[in-house]
Amino acid sequence: MSTLKNDFFLKALIGEIVDRPPVWMMRQAGRYLPEYLKLKAKYDFFARVETPELACEITLQPIDIVGPDAAIIFSDILVIPQALGEKVLMVEGKGPSLPHTISTQADIDALQVEGAAERLDYVCKAISLTKRELNGRVPLIGFAGAPFTILCYMVEGKGSKTFDKAKQFCFSQPYLAHQLLQKITDATISYLKAQVAAGADCVQVFDSWSGMLSPVDFTNFAYKYTRQVSDALSPLCPVILFPKGSWYALGQIANSSVSAVGIDWTVSAAYAREQTGGKITIQGNFDPAKLLTTPAEIKRDVTKMIDDFGVQRYIANLGHGILPNVPVDNAKAFVDAVKEYKKK
Amino acid sequence: MSTLKNDFFLKALIGEIVDRPPVWMMRQAGRYLPEYLKLKAKYDFFARVETPELACEITLQPIDIVGPDAAIIFSDILVIPQALGEKVLMVEGKGPSLPHTISTQADIDALQVEGAAERLDYVCKAISLTKRELNGRVPLIGFAGAPFTILCYMVEGKGSKTFDKAKQFCFSQPYLAHQLLQKITDATISYLKAQVAAGADCVQVFDSWSGMLSPVDFTNFAYKYTRQVSDALSPLCPVILFPKGSWYALGQIANSSVSAVGIDWTVSAAYAREQTGGKITIQGNFDPAKLLTTPAEIKRDVTKMIDDFGVQRYIANLGHGILPNVPVDNAKAFVDAVKEYKKK
Repeated sequence: MSTLKNDFFLKALIGEIVDRPPVWMMRQAGRYLPEYLKLKAKYDFFARVETPELACEITLQPIDIVGPDAAIIFSDILVIPQALGEKVLMVEGKGPSLPHTISTQADIDALQVEGAAERLDYVCKAISLTKRELNGRVPLIGFAGAPFTILCYMVEGKGSKTFDKAKQFCFSQPYLAHQLLQKITDATISYLKAQVAAGADCVQVFDSWSGMLSPVDFTNFAYKYTRQVSDALSPLCPVILFPKGSWYALGQIANSSVSAVGIDWTVSAAYAREQTGGKITIQGNFDPAKLLTTPAEIKRDVTKMIDDFGVQRYIANLGHGILPNVPVDNAKAFVDAVKEYKKK
Repeated sequence: MSTLKNDFFLKALIGEIVDRPPVWMMRQAGRYLPEYLKLKAKYDFFARVETPELACEITLQPIDIVGPDAAIIFSDILVIPQALGEKVLMVEGKGPSLPHTISTQADIDALQVEGAAERLDYVCKAISLTKRELNGRVPLIGFAGAPFTILCYMVEGKGSKTFDKAKQFCFSQPYLAHQLLQKITDATISYLKAQVAAGADCVQVFDSWSGMLSPVDFTNFAYKYTRQVSDALSPLCPVILFPKGSWYALGQIANSSVSAVGIDWTVSAAYAREQTGGKITIQGNFDPAKLLTTPAEIKRDVTKMIDDFGVQRYIANLGHGILPNVPVDNAKAFVDAVKEYKKK
């Protein structure tokens, strides 16, 4: 495996001194790119995810076109429920649907942790292929959904504004919820270890719905399991945790085995730095809706963001995934503004 | 007008000493009550909102059945766009729809602030009637949507998880956004003043979507206008601001003219008290999904909540509206647990 030509991202993750922050964008391989839309028109969602050559091509598109400092493998967090034996459908324009939702002990007993990571071998093949094609240009990020977020989909059966059915399951049947969370956790750990073995330089755990929980419930239903994941993976590679909306947990996370925490734009740089006390790297937190302004405004706002966070122990990113209607020039302006950043 | 027989709520709002906290529930007049569903089957949404006798009956239902310490007039935040001249449709099971969205100077110029409050006279009639029917049993809360939240619906045209179109409008056409926000603010102030004149003992301003904004954008697009509303109303009656998700703004709000701030369950009592420094009353913050457990668990969790917040300058409430599938006995358990609270 070739040496990395651009190691800004990995240096910032582990707290080494850098000249400027690294930059990437959540969902950078996706719907705002005309090149992606061409593949989307030809291949359905599962073909794109399950065919290593397609996943590799999609992963590389933003590297060639927009130029971030890290690639993230193109895949989906719902491959884990699939690997556990649940049917997952993608309804175009409506999001995911899991027709058989989890509600009983028998449902949980039927989930197959054994062999789950092996059933996701196509992701590892895509990672190996992408590493080869990247040829050291930038590091490659592997990822998985956090156990609580995966539970949300497995219990609710679809996306939701508030995931009340999933939360009701946790609150009224905690004994079942913890069994389910542990099964998801075990499968996720094996899956992420396989991603690292295949060549991922770092893994990010997306807890997209942990912000629906109170601080006490976050600790009990979300963090208890993401901590297991980060403790198991951190000896192998740096781990980034993105607990969307869980601003209240930054202090707790700073004292864990993760290397970095992702934050959204409601969290100020001052609050994030104060809570984490320089112990971990901060990743974020540009409001994705601001990429719908102009390149000049984006550059001004990105410069302000880096001024606020500082250059060290910081990874410039969005606070959530890039929106489908962002002009490619605006995405480029975001990345360029970070690359051109000069400290005053 | 008769003297109030139960003034726990107003005392807690202005910081007078009480034996126990008052309690009410956001959306307490609504879909979890079989008595409401009977009226819903007979009368469409606008008939229920625009007929003072129906709005009054619906407002009183939870007072009789569940027994909270305050009533809140049954209405909807989208009456303001209607009064400004926009068409608002309610699609059963799908939420609101505003077929003509605001995007241009001409759209904003066409909005009629003059006479807007008068066009909502049916709400004031409902308030007068309800005050008479309540006969001093509990105080009556009037309400309106906050200007930023109303802008979200007027620009987006419907509910949304992220209101990106509304945010894009604010960020890329701030000159238009501020004009729209000011028009909504002016109409809202007149409307809330009319509610107080009709008998509302207090008003709550619902900023349901302010949590989609960064702290800087909150100040610029949300708080700039809610502050105008609270400054105009606070000489007339106590004002409660509920800026859902804007945990970062509590310190700012504590130094404003509001009497109380509503918080959701992601905000711990310790954080809320530390940020507001005892200067204002805190309202909240039970996770509505916890009303789907059992009465015994609800009572245990409510007691813990009051232990955490303390009895003074506190109004027990949910952190968001009550869910439609909550058993009435569980709603009663919530209210009873507060009423039976004994300090250890």
